[in-house]
Amino acid sequence: MSSIGIVTPQAYRFTEPLALQSGANIFDYTLMVETYGTLNADKSNAVLVCHALNASHHVAGYYADQPKNIGWWDNMVGPGKSLDTDKFFVIGVNNLGSCFGSTGPMHTNPATGKPYGADFPVVTVEDWVNAQARLADVMGIQQFAAVMGGSLGGMQALAWSIMYPDRLRHCVVIASTPKLSAQNIAFNDVARQAILTDPDFHGGDFYAHNVVPRNGLRVARMIGHITYLSNDDMAEKFGRELKTGEYQFGFGVDFEIESYLRYQGDKFSDYFDANTYLLITKALDYFDPARAFGGDLSKALANTKAKFFLASFSTDWRFSPERSREIVQALVENKRTVSYAEIDAPHGHDAFLLEDERYLNLVAAYYARIAKELA
Amino acid sequence: MSSIGIVTPQAYRFTEPLALQSGANIFDYTLMVETYGTLNADKSNAVLVCHALNASHHVAGYYADQPKNIGWWDNMVGPGKSLDTDKFFVIGVNNLGSCFGSTGPMHTNPATGKPYGADFPVVTVEDWVNAQARLADVMGIQQFAAVMGGSLGGMQALAWSIMYPDRLRHCVVIASTPKLSAQNIAFNDVARQAILTDPDFHGGDFYAHNVVPRNGLRVARMIGHITYLSNDDMAEKFGRELKTGEYQFGFGVDFEIESYLRYQGDKFSDYFDANTYLLITKALDYFDPARAFGGDLSKALANTKAKFFLASFSTDWRFSPERSREIVQALVENKRTVSYAEIDAPHGHDAFLLEDERYLNLVAAYYARIAKELA
Repeated sequence: MSSIGIVTPQAYRFTEPLALQSGANIFDYTLMVETYGTLNADKSNAVLVCHALNASHHVAGYYADQPKNIGWWDNMVGPGKSLDTDKFFVIGVNNLGSCFGSTGPMHTNPATGKPYGADFPVVTVEDWVNAQARLADVMGIQQFAAVMGGSLGGMQALAWSIMYPDRLRHCVVIASTPKLSAQNIAFNDVARQAILTDPDFHGGDFYAHNVVPRNGLRVARMIGHITYLSNDDMAEKFGRELKTGEYQFGFGVDFEIESYLRYQGDKFSDYFDANTYLLITKALDYFDPARAFGGDLSKALANTKAKFFLASFSTDWRFSPERSREIVQALVENKRTVSYAEIDAPHGHDAFLLEDERYLNLVAAYYARIAKELA
Repeated sequence: MSSIGIVTPQAYRFTEPLALQSGANIFDYTLMVETYGTLNADKSNAVLVCHALNASHHVAGYYADQPKNIGWWDNMVGPGKSLDTDKFFVIGVNNLGSCFGSTGPMHTNPATGKPYGADFPVVTVEDWVNAQARLADVMGIQQFAAVMGGSLGGMQALAWSIMYPDRLRHCVVIASTPKLSAQNIAFNDVARQAILTDPDFHGGDFYAHNVVPRNGLRVARMIGHITYLSNDDMAEKFGRELKTGEYQFGFGVDFEIESYLRYQGDKFSDYFDANTYLLITKALDYFDPARAFGGDLSKALANTKAKFFLASFSTDWRFSPERSREIVQALVENKRTVSYAEIDAPHGHDAFLLEDERYLNLVAAYYARIAKELA
């Protein structure tokens, strides 16, 4: 159960073009936003929570007409929770190109009067951060108490610390990485290929054909899902359990793990936009703040001013603890204040979204410190 | 270069039906076979080499009209090599259901006069071993000096030791596992789903439509390929190298790893049969000799009589060293003679096919011992 209760998203419209890293612009866009808690008088208690691949601005609480649609980080954000909304004003924002209300490929391209589809520009983590900074301007927030995120959300928090060093006091980066590995990119590209080669994709303009590249999306999600779970966790949860207890000697479902993955794939293809999947995985692939500094992450982080909290999970093989340690190392080289926790948890990359007392307590302790600074 | 030189495959036809584990039968089938070296007078120096997913009977040498088509284990098998064809008579056999000449889904189903397609029965590792045993009968080989294989080939060797304990003196199992994990099955099932949902698959009867489910096969191979390479090896070989040096801000090729994987997928979809891919991954999934013994591998191996050699590779995350150790442990519990080598190699699962002096020397030493036993 959510302790935030009923929430209502708000749409913020921006009519000033946003210049993107690719050289393209987005004109006249909307960001969907949710907030929890109360902004204090000096506007110093705001925390921006950035989302990962398939999440959104709906971080906590539920909608009046959808009581089961609980925010993706509801176990983290709420009154008395780790990110305590009795003390902090928490903001969730759906990123550009996503499919949960902010301007994305399924919306009308003002230049053509038709859905963007393949014409929606490729967006980067840095583009999202620029859009979030404009939102902060409109909300009158000059400096966040913290910017926080897990996985791709952690990349956004890290980018904030580099691009807007004066606009966040703390940077909270969970289960993330300073850049994708070749293996990470490989998994993303296979998923993209599954979508791009689905005949129902129609080069990204499937909206006009009233179809959805379901098969491609389904395979993409199944691949992704394997990388979110740990090998041990999968063994523990599913092992070689058979759906009927007997081999079927066919290509239907034999094993429970097949049933589970196909279900996840089916569910995902019902609600997620294929163009968004392509865009968000590209944003993941492109993130590499050290690239502009000859690969030197330490130099990339030289102008940061925030204090940092990082956490990683022992069985996360998507973004392993080693990847978080690279960030920690580069921050230490810059003499930044860093807290780092490596949490022994069985649930792979997904652990950052799950209940884990040690993890939630560590985050709680860190935010308690931030709250004291503000008092 | 091959030191075996020119080789010629032979077709062995069997007209006695083969009863399969599923309850189905295959009537009137052909096995494609290659042999290297000379069978000695008492027929005691034969070594059966079993192949993995996309390999065949073409273990070593090349074809007169295809000088570049060198056998898949040519670095292992030949005069003076680890499996020395000056001493051993080596047999490669293409498994039933494969697509390199032995009876498979693309061949005519005698019952219908049309290609088998989806009607080709599901075959298991044990079915293959039974077919191989018939081949041995025809060749007059009562007992192999060794049965050997890597990965899925290793499963066949292990099954030989269980099913025909008197018919092999040695069992050589490389980079294999006593059963797939949930994660292994998950990867296989995603690959199968990519093929099964490709509109060009036509429920397995694509031959009649003169199409091939290329997109599905391509994605399947890309997924497989990621699991054959180690994370470190991929980082070393490809890292984040860009094809053009610059981000393209589109969905073509940005990174070298994307170019490599797409190339591998394209190449594979040119020559591999989609139904075969389904069949062989199912054989992998179903292999689990301990299943009939309540999951007790030690009991499953209780009737084995062979001596065993096993090897695994440190960076193999598909079938990790831990999986080989499970087999070793169960053999030790049965007081079998076992040699086991864990080889520190960077190339992941693919290592079993690659040049690695320590590995090839260990296998050579083991076969030298077998040769002495025979002398």
